Amino acid sequence: MSEERVEAEVVVVGAGLAGLSAARELKRLGVDAVVVEARDRVGGRTLNEPIGGGEIVELGGQWVGPGQDHALELIAELGLETFPTWCEGKNVFERSGRARTYSGTIPKLNPVSLAEVGVALKRLEKMASKVDVSQPWVQTDLARWDSETFATWARRNARTPAARDLLRLAIQAVWAAEPEDVSLLHALFYVQSSGGSLEKMLDAEGGAQDSRVVGGTQLISERMAAELGDAVHLGFPVRRIRWREMPGGVEDQPLGTGPHPVTVEADGLTVSARAAVVALPPAVAGRLEYDPVMPSVRDGLTQRMVQGTVVKCHAIYDEPFWRAEGLSGQATSADGPVSVTFDNSPPSGSPGVLLAFLEGNAARAATDLPPEERQQIVLDCLVRLFGPKAAKPEKFVDKAWAADEFARGCYGGYLPTGAWLMYGAGLRAPVGPLHWAGAETATVNAGYMDGAISSGIRAAREIAPGT
Amino acid sequence: MSEERVEAEVVVVGAGLAGLSAARELKRLGVDAVVVEARDRVGGRTLNEPIGGGEIVELGGQWVGPGQDHALELIAELGLETFPTWCEGKNVFERSGRARTYSGTIPKLNPVSLAEVGVALKRLEKMASKVDVSQPWVQTDLARWDSETFATWARRNARTPAARDLLRLAIQAVWAAEPEDVSLLHALFYVQSSGGSLEKMLDAEGGAQDSRVVGGTQLISERMAAELGDAVHLGFPVRRIRWREMPGGVEDQPLGTGPHPVTVEADGLTVSARAAVVALPPAVAGRLEYDPVMPSVRDGLTQRMVQGTVVKCHAIYDEPFWRAEGLSGQATSADGPVSVTFDNSPPSGSPGVLLAFLEGNAARAATDLPPEERQQIVLDCLVRLFGPKAAKPEKFVDKAWAADEFARGCYGGYLPTGAWLMYGAGLRAPVGPLHWAGAETATVNAGYMDGAISSGIRAAREIAPGT
Repeated sequence: MSEERVEAEVVVVGAGLAGLSAARELKRLGVDAVVVEARDRVGGRTLNEPIGGGEIVELGGQWVGPGQDHALELIAELGLETFPTWCEGKNVFERSGRARTYSGTIPKLNPVSLAEVGVALKRLEKMASKVDVSQPWVQTDLARWDSETFATWARRNARTPAARDLLRLAIQAVWAAEPEDVSLLHALFYVQSSGGSLEKMLDAEGGAQDSRVVGGTQLISERMAAELGDAVHLGFPVRRIRWREMPGGVEDQPLGTGPHPVTVEADGLTVSARAAVVALPPAVAGRLEYDPVMPSVRDGLTQRMVQGTVVKCHAIYDEPFWRAEGLSGQATSADGPVSVTFDNSPPSGSPGVLLAFLEGNAARAATDLPPEERQQIVLDCLVRLFGPKAAKPEKFVDKAWAADEFARGCYGGYLPTGAWLMYGAGLRAPVGPLHWAGAETATVNAGYMDGAISSGIRAAREIAPGT
Repeated sequence: MSEERVEAEVVVVGAGLAGLSAARELKRLGVDAVVVEARDRVGGRTLNEPIGGGEIVELGGQWVGPGQDHALELIAELGLETFPTWCEGKNVFERSGRARTYSGTIPKLNPVSLAEVGVALKRLEKMASKVDVSQPWVQTDLARWDSETFATWARRNARTPAARDLLRLAIQAVWAAEPEDVSLLHALFYVQSSGGSLEKMLDAEGGAQDSRVVGGTQLISERMAAELGDAVHLGFPVRRIRWREMPGGVEDQPLGTGPHPVTVEADGLTVSARAAVVALPPAVAGRLEYDPVMPSVRDGLTQRMVQGTVVKCHAIYDEPFWRAEGLSGQATSADGPVSVTFDNSPPSGSPGVLLAFLEGNAARAATDLPPEERQQIVLDCLVRLFGPKAAKPEKFVDKAWAADEFARGCYGGYLPTGAWLMYGAGLRAPVGPLHWAGAETATVNAGYMDGAISSGIRAAREIAPGT
């Protein structure tokens, strides 16, 4: 294998939103940075898939909403536009074999269950407001919340099966995991990081699923990469990072001078630099070889931060037939395996695209299946929710992110019980000249595209604070 | 880097007890196997450390006990001997600043707490008896137990602080983790795998800490390696395993014939083979690169199976001074950070060796400290437990396993909530020509040296069933 060698002030590992934002911010600060990306494309967990006629669907992250200022600003700066998520009409809720329509965020349930869900959401928000999202690990008084799963909390706080089902659907929708998987403290951290309202996180209009990017979110990364030009190296999977502490520290040395204590070794490319930004999901960053090895607080964090599991599916029809029937295309099913759907048609409204998510256990069961089987499982659900016209799409495209070598799951990383207090400090603290970015390292909108972008900017400024 | 190339019928990755047992069994079955080991020594998580005068202490796994037949047989076959763990005398129990002596396994507490612990242990054993250790993942009726941590179960089943403290100490002693970390189902699986009695797992005489190996447990691996001769390659960290499914499967082809669909790439060494045994902790196995990538059930398992955290410390004195005071050298402290101690003197009784464990959170806090600080923390505890003579050992040796690149924790891997049912099937099921060994993959005595040995033999027989 031929070995290309490059020198730079800063090397960025990963050309997703976090890595490219870091490189872009470094460039703005006058710092020479190169980006090394394993895949032959930029965008990380955002990915456009052409579906013909100049249209695309997004197989990865796609929505932006109010309060996601970093994302909204970047989209505007790059000359991109947003459009509102298609959501006019009635939503569908399915449970115990019955599908019913409703309006708003929370489906019509019996009054007791509805009241339980309402109280539970209020309690969660009140608890979340106590979490310091910048450093939950110092809040040792929150140990109790980190000792239990969301599942045990939900069992105590929702007694009716319908209310428990709704809470489960919320967990699946936000973390692509099950209530059993997630530490209660992690759920609270995440809610607080996203603005404090779990309900808003689940909403389309005015919520986290408010708007989409015309042309698809991968354009954000593609335009940043275009600005960076040949500083972005695609198709070089990083395997090893060698680093050393510099006597006296490199931080005090002016940029552009001094030694290069970091060597990033990819298949076919070696980059030496003064500092590095590792912009990968923690579970993936933990698989690199580090020399010297990571301190145990960092390694323990990457051992524990698990990737969610989702299969994002698109059934593409000649037209959005559900609209004629007064339906929004949004559906939620407690019966599964599809847990939630959206109308994901392009701005023109044609073709009609139903987006269906398999999340958590449903995605785990489906990921290793043959694609045809997975497709049939999803279409069967869509027929139940939207009628027989859903049975025969023109096209069906999906992506099982847990099978993706460089993501090993989506939407992102979450922590099981017992991890935040002992290992949270390993999430973002630099190790010598190595800095960490990625959606999971954000304090505001952690796990979202917005958090990825701000994390890259934050990592860049750690390295070039004075510029 | 020079590249050595080797061909073999089977390549074994890892020269710990599991890998060497696999290679030894393959040799017995007439199958040519080579072993590739990252470290410059064999033994994996067993490790002898010379302390002068021809004596050693064991920095890793050391005990064997009744029911660990694979270990006891192998020790005898290799011409090694065992001796009883030093345990004559009174034990010490410390809680709320008071150290008291007692006899037996369970310290003297107030009667209410003692009764609570007794009932809790009985309940655990009864629940554990329902776990099918060979495939808990098919027991979907156990989902409830996998939805909660040991901590929430213990809060419901032990109301007095003293009883909760004892249960916490038991979890720390067995998993080097905290009750918050471990799925209740994982705890039950492990108890059942170890014979069904948590109390026996904590016992010296007649229990899992019954006996030791004269000369140290690393001799087991060293003698197996000596039998295998130059088939064992030390100092070659494996980075990548390339494999392919053979049309028609290789399993039907007689050994010694056919293609070599596996290539194991280590730094400086490449081995091609017909099949592989990967005998690494799952958390470490998950960091290798696989081409093609692992199915998501396997990758999800390795993402979730976390290594426990322990610092194993030895304070070495001219003589075992505690014996003259009628003490066994065994102590348990709810005050910490040392949670448990043993008399770890060699068979001759001289020098006197106190073994002290930092486990779970105590180990996590201590792993990245400077060695002198860690030593002082431990000696301060030993003085509280055994008096001022403990303050000045002749020598102090410890090992923080979470900092070890090729273990990243000890005693072994455990599963947090939500993992057994969805990912347990990825623990042991072969993937094409790749087979999995290691203590964590055992059904009987999972996590123990005995389980490591039987897992290696099992993996060997998967590959060479007819021979």
